[in-house]
Amino acid sequence: MTLRAEILAVGSELLTPLRSDTNALYLTERLRELGVEVGSRVTVADDPALLESAFRAALARADIVIATGGLGPTEDDLTREAAAAALGRGLHRDPRLLEMLKERFRRYRREMAPVNEKQADVIEGAIVLPNPRGTAPGQRVESGERVLILLPGPPAEMEPMFQEQVGPLIGERAGGSVLRTRVLKIASMSESDVEQAVAPVYKTFTNPRTTILGGPGQVELHLTASGASGAEAEARIEALATGLRERLPGRIYGEDGRELPEVVADLLRSRGLTLALAESCTGGLLSARLTDVPGASRFLERAYVTYSNRAKAELLGVEAALLDSVGAVSAEVAAAMAAGVRRAAGSAIGVGITGIAGPDGGSPEKPVGLVFLALDGAAGTRVRQAHFPGGRERVRYQASQAALEMIRRGLLGLASW
Amino acid sequence: MTLRAEILAVGSELLTPLRSDTNALYLTERLRELGVEVGSRVTVADDPALLESAFRAALARADIVIATGGLGPTEDDLTREAAAAALGRGLHRDPRLLEMLKERFRRYRREMAPVNEKQADVIEGAIVLPNPRGTAPGQRVESGERVLILLPGPPAEMEPMFQEQVGPLIGERAGGSVLRTRVLKIASMSESDVEQAVAPVYKTFTNPRTTILGGPGQVELHLTASGASGAEAEARIEALATGLRERLPGRIYGEDGRELPEVVADLLRSRGLTLALAESCTGGLLSARLTDVPGASRFLERAYVTYSNRAKAELLGVEAALLDSVGAVSAEVAAAMAAGVRRAAGSAIGVGITGIAGPDGGSPEKPVGLVFLALDGAAGTRVRQAHFPGGRERVRYQASQAALEMIRRGLLGLASW
Repeated sequence: MTLRAEILAVGSELLTPLRSDTNALYLTERLRELGVEVGSRVTVADDPALLESAFRAALARADIVIATGGLGPTEDDLTREAAAAALGRGLHRDPRLLEMLKERFRRYRREMAPVNEKQADVIEGAIVLPNPRGTAPGQRVESGERVLILLPGPPAEMEPMFQEQVGPLIGERAGGSVLRTRVLKIASMSESDVEQAVAPVYKTFTNPRTTILGGPGQVELHLTASGASGAEAEARIEALATGLRERLPGRIYGEDGRELPEVVADLLRSRGLTLALAESCTGGLLSARLTDVPGASRFLERAYVTYSNRAKAELLGVEAALLDSVGAVSAEVAAAMAAGVRRAAGSAIGVGITGIAGPDGGSPEKPVGLVFLALDGAAGTRVRQAHFPGGRERVRYQASQAALEMIRRGLLGLASW
Repeated sequence: MTLRAEILAVGSELLTPLRSDTNALYLTERLRELGVEVGSRVTVADDPALLESAFRAALARADIVIATGGLGPTEDDLTREAAAAALGRGLHRDPRLLEMLKERFRRYRREMAPVNEKQADVIEGAIVLPNPRGTAPGQRVESGERVLILLPGPPAEMEPMFQEQVGPLIGERAGGSVLRTRVLKIASMSESDVEQAVAPVYKTFTNPRTTILGGPGQVELHLTASGASGAEAEARIEALATGLRERLPGRIYGEDGRELPEVVADLLRSRGLTLALAESCTGGLLSARLTDVPGASRFLERAYVTYSNRAKAELLGVEAALLDSVGAVSAEVAAAMAAGVRRAAGSAIGVGITGIAGPDGGSPEKPVGLVFLALDGAAGTRVRQAHFPGGRERVRYQASQAALEMIRRGLLGLASW
């Protein structure tokens, strides 16, 4: 039987619109990997009655309850008291813990204020979980078949404590079944095209389960498998991934967590090739995304943002007659931009992007979202026309993504589109 | 007395790591504006026992319970049943609602599957909340002093239903006290410097309350005031904001929701001035952020990303002797880049950025994070040296933010730093 967990995030600040609870997301993911299902996730204000009620409800419906936060020294830190009340147990001040707290303050040459003493309060029958990175220790309480775990709120303290002291214990309880997830990434294909291609394969598998996640310019296939061991789960994933690769030849750009700019940067670096960019409607976004990769100066010789026709002519040698006859947003000008920037930079590859990002500047013949992309290299010139949906930001992002995929396909000698 | 609300988000998909619950954030913010405090926020899987327990707990501790999701036609949609069970009431199928559902299907020329009929199930004593944008209607149930509201999950259906049918009712219950928030934004100052400057003022106010939020390159002051009317709350905010402006002369770049690139773009456009950029370590990020503003082509003549010394020399006229003597990362080269790009583009203003974004390329004399920024215009040249903390992405972002603030200060004739 699958164990069920509940996650309790304690703190009024988590209920303001400014903050999101990253601890709950972290714990959801870790518990899933251990084969434990998260049935509910609760965020509670620093209020004694609310907190006690939340602990009571959680202990009534979950096998494992993990609470984060509210273990500090201030008046608002009520997790210990509320958990003890919900369990119907007392709290006692642990003298050894108190000594360790005082020692910690001495080490940092600070006086320990009396208010800190309550951090040494331990629920009857609880096991203390040391917190080497902070002052508030955690606690683990067994209550019949259930287990309650209190952890501090700061992720830098909570995460290693979970990893070292809580995870292994829960894994044992969950009977050793583990989950693994792999993400297959595809750029510049629509979610429905990906779905149509892969559905006949992934629908024949129940383990792994497949989730398709579509975003601007990218589709992700999340494969999640369970197994008696990590290796078994990985083998199940590989079996399905093999089938998916056959259905999407050359389309899956990554399975190792790298994003498209990193994949392209690594290809360029491993081949010792240089790149130069001429961007119009993307306004430097492609350059910014590529140079976010460390060491980008080794392959990116230069980039131009050429909004004006004058800049296109002066810097890229795009002829005025061409601009006049077909307009700046055209396949011809994209190709001339790519060739021009490659020539100016003396780079192995040149890229040109011109289009209409909106919201203004569209026309019936050249609507908002129309983008021309060109790739110029030793093997010749490739041009692609695309029409991206959405507002200015989405159009620009999809255009940069399509350009990256175009470079990747060119470098790997894959068919144009 | 402040009313207390609990938000229940229903749906197993919300407990996977891929999804976050945006409805709860939306409702938290709207309720706060109406003067209602959110005491807890719960996310529950599609499980009848869990759901009923969650409704029971919520109804025991909150004055207002709002649940989103789980109102659709599938087997997993259990919100109606669970809420009825927690209230100890029955469900009945509303014939008028059933007819409306059938009519909706007829309108779209589709056959209504029998499974859809359960969307016409109404809790005893509930008032139906019409959903003109979807098939699942909402419900409102009064139970003693408490009120339970069920809303559909899709934000496009839920948000207008809340706005039109739920918000006004809750506002009335909350006694007409309203909350308003204004955000004052400051670029390129540290959180502690801002705190030190404004603490003597904001600490004398209890209404509005002030929250200071620091991020890379930006500090925000969130002022939240309550009042009998929106105008009263706004007046209280303005009283504090006046004091804060005096403590931070010329530092608050916006109070109307606009981000720094928009503020700079609006200044340039209103003065009819053009801009050209020469970026090294920011690699196009400044250009990408500025051109994300619609209509950027009206003020951005061109931008260069000049990583190589050759590009700096060819495009910007930075002399080889200068590069050799002081190095590419220097005040002199930043100034030469700004002047060079202004000359090449024939623009009113030129900006140059050069620095070490990391993780490689640092030295004891020129460590990672060292950045020189220059602004060149009719009034002369300004150069700033900065040392930004953090990894590559943060260094680059802070450098782009500092450059934008430099342009803003130059345009407004404010002191350099």
